[in-house]
Amino acid sequence: MSDINKALDAADKALDASLDRLFEFLRIPSISADSAYVGDCQKAAEWAAAALRDIGFDASPRKTIGHPMVVGHRRTGKPGVPHVLFYGHYDVQPPDPLNLWHTKPFEPVRKPGPHGDIIVARGASDDKGQVMTFIEACRALIETQGELPIDVTVFLEGEEESSSRSLIPFLKENKDELKADFCLVCDTDMWDRETPAITTMLRGMVYEEVTIKAASRDLHSGMYGGAAQNPIRVLSKILAALHDDDGRVTLPGFYDGVKELPDAVKAEWAALDFDGEAYLAEVGLKVPAGEKDRTVLEQITVRPTCDVNGISGGYEGEGAKTVIAAQASAKVSFRLVAGQEPEKVQAAFRKFVTDRLPADCRAEFLSHGLGPAIAVPADSEPLAKARAALAEEWGRTAPVIGSGGSIPVVGDMQRILGIDSLLIGFALEDDQIHSPNEKYDVRSFHRGIRSWVRILDALAK
Amino acid sequence: MSDINKALDAADKALDASLDRLFEFLRIPSISADSAYVGDCQKAAEWAAAALRDIGFDASPRKTIGHPMVVGHRRTGKPGVPHVLFYGHYDVQPPDPLNLWHTKPFEPVRKPGPHGDIIVARGASDDKGQVMTFIEACRALIETQGELPIDVTVFLEGEEESSSRSLIPFLKENKDELKADFCLVCDTDMWDRETPAITTMLRGMVYEEVTIKAASRDLHSGMYGGAAQNPIRVLSKILAALHDDDGRVTLPGFYDGVKELPDAVKAEWAALDFDGEAYLAEVGLKVPAGEKDRTVLEQITVRPTCDVNGISGGYEGEGAKTVIAAQASAKVSFRLVAGQEPEKVQAAFRKFVTDRLPADCRAEFLSHGLGPAIAVPADSEPLAKARAALAEEWGRTAPVIGSGGSIPVVGDMQRILGIDSLLIGFALEDDQIHSPNEKYDVRSFHRGIRSWVRILDALAK
Repeated sequence: MSDINKALDAADKALDASLDRLFEFLRIPSISADSAYVGDCQKAAEWAAAALRDIGFDASPRKTIGHPMVVGHRRTGKPGVPHVLFYGHYDVQPPDPLNLWHTKPFEPVRKPGPHGDIIVARGASDDKGQVMTFIEACRALIETQGELPIDVTVFLEGEEESSSRSLIPFLKENKDELKADFCLVCDTDMWDRETPAITTMLRGMVYEEVTIKAASRDLHSGMYGGAAQNPIRVLSKILAALHDDDGRVTLPGFYDGVKELPDAVKAEWAALDFDGEAYLAEVGLKVPAGEKDRTVLEQITVRPTCDVNGISGGYEGEGAKTVIAAQASAKVSFRLVAGQEPEKVQAAFRKFVTDRLPADCRAEFLSHGLGPAIAVPADSEPLAKARAALAEEWGRTAPVIGSGGSIPVVGDMQRILGIDSLLIGFALEDDQIHSPNEKYDVRSFHRGIRSWVRILDALAK
Repeated sequence: MSDINKALDAADKALDASLDRLFEFLRIPSISADSAYVGDCQKAAEWAAAALRDIGFDASPRKTIGHPMVVGHRRTGKPGVPHVLFYGHYDVQPPDPLNLWHTKPFEPVRKPGPHGDIIVARGASDDKGQVMTFIEACRALIETQGELPIDVTVFLEGEEESSSRSLIPFLKENKDELKADFCLVCDTDMWDRETPAITTMLRGMVYEEVTIKAASRDLHSGMYGGAAQNPIRVLSKILAALHDDDGRVTLPGFYDGVKELPDAVKAEWAALDFDGEAYLAEVGLKVPAGEKDRTVLEQITVRPTCDVNGISGGYEGEGAKTVIAAQASAKVSFRLVAGQEPEKVQAAFRKFVTDRLPADCRAEFLSHGLGPAIAVPADSEPLAKARAALAEEWGRTAPVIGSGGSIPVVGDMQRILGIDSLLIGFALEDDQIHSPNEKYDVRSFHRGIRSWVRILDALAK
């Protein structure tokens, strides 16, 4: 049996033990956006560092002004081998609405799904399951070969789901320690259930929270209704104006600098035979709600968008309350593509809101992050090696794709460490990440581990 | 000392004890809209019944499908005396947002205010404080005269703040027991700090909760943003369309049947010298937000209005979450005036929403009540007697006014029991009812008690 086959065989045999370790990790409610879970984020960081030490990494949690980072190194000592920085995150999204979960979000279960067994838990896919595919692949290689084929630094963040405020300072302060030849990022999707993918285009993001304030206190709608400015009404009117009837975002200058896809990429994508209707049908929708002159695939990956992610104001409890709220707020995010400047979009949004404020109203803004869209080279040597390794595992060529989501760290790595990233993940579009009943296919987990075994092996050659 | 002066004197001397009793009542968090407080509503009903029994009423809580009613009788046994039904409610609004209260909402405190001492607590004014002015007046009369001057039935509801679902069935089932010559309702305001008022026009109400649903689950805005319908965006657009640029409600047919105020009333009101700017300035506002061609006084009392009382959707917690919600909802209420039909307004609203739903969206509606505007005679004999009694106590004539709020029970009494109401209350416009730091002036409480002593006495003559 070749070395690589021994490692793959070990990964197969250890699957149950690997799942047990993942379940331990999933039981820690490391919700970074909610300050009630600070202790759990710390615990998750310590758990991950211990998991790395267990397979011979020199690993530890590192303090930041927010949740800790985890850094672990395992060097081969061999000169000339590549050095990769693996990036992932141990924090998760809040699980609400809790009543829509069929099992408890932090009590992971393995159960049958329509395409084989699935792991259900918050973070099962995003990103604890994906992170563990890499760590378990390292374990299989180390146990069968005594060492890794290349030098590896693992770097896990605990604030990816809540604006990553410590990331840039940490990268700057630890530039020398984190510097590698390139970065591996495992926070992306397969193309479909049978086809792996390598992501090279990522949308950027501007995420704003706006609060409209009017009266100095909540008012009784019987005593003031008719005469008092209602912040919910004002906010609704502003949010309603953010899109025109053709689904285009109306912020002045929003589309400045946005380029059309090259014809070659358009052709490649046409060949992928993406079924936009089926994609929407899976979540109960039929009609694309975005720009009318764009395909669903364009709308969700390479076109800029605007969404209201949350809205809140007045009485939201059971029953009725005849109140005119003193304030109302919304969380509004913009997905950006190459060519758009996040600072300009943020400024345009704030101006858009303040320009529309009636008398007696004022607006307050809170930024939850902004980052540009990112492109990484689609023709590098590591990418070619990884693509070959994926083809061996899956029997199909991994297309080079764009992702609708933002992974700002890829841009930060480029800017601060001067390295590009290779984005490979085994999540599926039905994983319900950020939603109730998030899941990760056991097959994604198992073949993800096997894929990383092959990729790490391939990168050494 | 005349009988009436003995009773007034007794009320003065007992003020501290009366306040102690009110504070006991206020300590019970009888929030009818929230099912977590069912036990406290029961407790408040029992407390009120016991308070009535303590002054010789034959009183008890009565079961309903919701929170209990309280009914108590005290008859003089004298033939020919009038029989009044006193209506009030023991339930209160939810106290949120809690962080804006300076003291705890259910731990009443007496403290200095800008115009003398105030009682701060949820329900201090609406309606526990007002109810207790009547019960304490009865106590003073009974203690000094051995009996009440007229027959009195006290009838307290526990669902006034949460749509009164048991009220109509209860009135129908207990029609004979509750039948009286007329009703006294103590849930209204003074004209100003020095001038009592008798309310004869009340706005009606249609209160709807609408939920817009799109995808079958919450979606990740990175994976679906651009293509998926966003219910918050849809809801905002619909709410934004409910008013035109002149502040008029845009529901088709909304103003059908609405009449102009008679010139005589307009003249009387002009003489009251209401300062709309000052009214708004007290709550930090300057510019009336309602119909542009109406005065503030018209906007808040005799014109129909629409307000969004609450809105909710997506991620409302701390920080950021990149979600596209599966649903969003709003509580929308309409204040109605004489001539408008609540059922027509409700149907027009529901059609307005469904007509504006884009593909993939559906709307669900929940009614939190509907009732027409009400007018009671402004020239009845009891009204004239009460007006004279109020003039003795306050040294000013009580004007006959319209109220912006809804008191649907007045219409129900007309329809089911066949009796009109006399609406007299001692609340002030700065009582912050339904808001944090609700208060009742000790002076309102004290002179409210004295006013009822005089009114009950006057009604016997």
